[in-house]
Amino acid sequence: MRDLGLMYADMTYDVVHTWRGGFFRLEDHLDRFFASMAGLRLDPRLTRNEIRAILARLVRDSGLEDSLVYFACTRGMTVPGTRDPRLSRNRFFATVTPLVLRGQPAQMRRGQHAMVVPEVPRIASASVNPLWKNSHWGDFLRATFAAQDAGGDVPILLTHTGDVAEAPGFNVVALVDGELISPDSGVLPGISCRSMFEIAQELGIPARYGRLSPAALRGAAEVFLTATSCGLFPVTRIDGAPVGDGRPGQVTTRLLNTYYRKKNTGWHITPAGAINQAGECEQ
Amino acid sequence: MRDLGLMYADMTYDVVHTWRGGFFRLEDHLDRFFASMAGLRLDPRLTRNEIRAILARLVRDSGLEDSLVYFACTRGMTVPGTRDPRLSRNRFFATVTPLVLRGQPAQMRRGQHAMVVPEVPRIASASVNPLWKNSHWGDFLRATFAAQDAGGDVPILLTHTGDVAEAPGFNVVALVDGELISPDSGVLPGISCRSMFEIAQELGIPARYGRLSPAALRGAAEVFLTATSCGLFPVTRIDGAPVGDGRPGQVTTRLLNTYYRKKNTGWHITPAGAINQAGECEQ
Repeated sequence: MRDLGLMYADMTYDVVHTWRGGFFRLEDHLDRFFASMAGLRLDPRLTRNEIRAILARLVRDSGLEDSLVYFACTRGMTVPGTRDPRLSRNRFFATVTPLVLRGQPAQMRRGQHAMVVPEVPRIASASVNPLWKNSHWGDFLRATFAAQDAGGDVPILLTHTGDVAEAPGFNVVALVDGELISPDSGVLPGISCRSMFEIAQELGIPARYGRLSPAALRGAAEVFLTATSCGLFPVTRIDGAPVGDGRPGQVTTRLLNTYYRKKNTGWHITPAGAINQAGECEQ
Repeated sequence: MRDLGLMYADMTYDVVHTWRGGFFRLEDHLDRFFASMAGLRLDPRLTRNEIRAILARLVRDSGLEDSLVYFACTRGMTVPGTRDPRLSRNRFFATVTPLVLRGQPAQMRRGQHAMVVPEVPRIASASVNPLWKNSHWGDFLRATFAAQDAGGDVPILLTHTGDVAEAPGFNVVALVDGELISPDSGVLPGISCRSMFEIAQELGIPARYGRLSPAALRGAAEVFLTATSCGLFPVTRIDGAPVGDGRPGQVTTRLLNTYYRKKNTGWHITPAGAINQAGECEQ
């Protein structure tokens, strides 16, 4: 309770999932975690191999095939009489929980009803760097209540300059003029979004990061949100109006189905059992 | 570890101190705590009397005369498969720790060396409402490292429009043209600042909340920071240049001395022993 991670959101975290006993894109999540720690000057004095070993052991001990593995580094305990973050000993912890997919089949068919919430802009990058994955969700929370009050499920936040940013824990992707676009600044570069873009490339669907205006979003043929806990989630309404015909689009559905098919055949999968006690991958 | 207060900084908190066995401005802190909870739609299902009773019992049981009492309400445990904050059961907790004053006498004489950090603006009010006391300190942390890198002790952050905002957990007060000014927007209305302004009024020193530019701050005759854990802390350098003659100013010193003298005679003090088991104040 006296950890600065709780008291002042002074921490970073990441979430990787396991699928049929294997980590999905573990090295990408570790890359981001170490980059976030470096940016925030956090150092739990654990090597990458040590962290990999901890996560693998946690998953093996849990007995879970499909799981969410949350891992975090916090600043550590507050030191009375000072606010100097350099004096705290940084801490690492991890939890494993069953993978409860956001978006069961019926929910996926209905899709998410999103509301653009311009009155609550995403926290500016100059204030809190979104590239360092952080727990500053106050804007997401406030926008979530605004979206729910207006009858929607999920908010879409804009940047301070009025472009589309993110939804809470989701990257936003729109199909505009036959091309997938996801915002390229002021947002966390999501790993699930990257997966979908890799699949799009295989399928011959153009995909790029760039500026996305609210008008382009509202006029998009298809819209979806990406996150580890769902892969992607179709958006079928924005501000009450249907996206396309109001059902998950063809491109969205193809991407999601291909994502599962590829994962099932081991794409980007590292079996937990292939990580030895030293944290090295033996495959 | 699975509380949204930690995972997504979805919480509010407050810190009241006890002095010689009595709470200082307890009702002001409770007012702010309940306003923050209402704004953030947090409800731990405890009445004000119940919370007052918990805090008083905690202080009595601790045996501490001078203490910091931290109390918080978090969103509660995450619910797998959803990000709907309405589904969590909000939680309350409190801790009591010995009051280690920030600013022992020698530190007070030296004062704080502050650095204005324009490259890290305070999180905008539209994103996270600063009137609801929150744990979003990422900007403070980033600015603290920038200030330390530049040889200073503490950063002073500006708003997105370039006016003086706050220091990490401190209100900023400047003596400009014989008048005390503290920023009036984009900041938490601090209770220690209010105390200093009440004392200033008694001493016949004009004091008001208003816009404070970085130029006015740098040209101020005296500057100090206010917080529960120190009352006030003199700022003797800004960006390396001395404030006034580089020593704590006369007004600053008078305010601090008067603050202690008044607290010692019971000003705004509620003895912990005067709060009964039902949380009512019997004085």
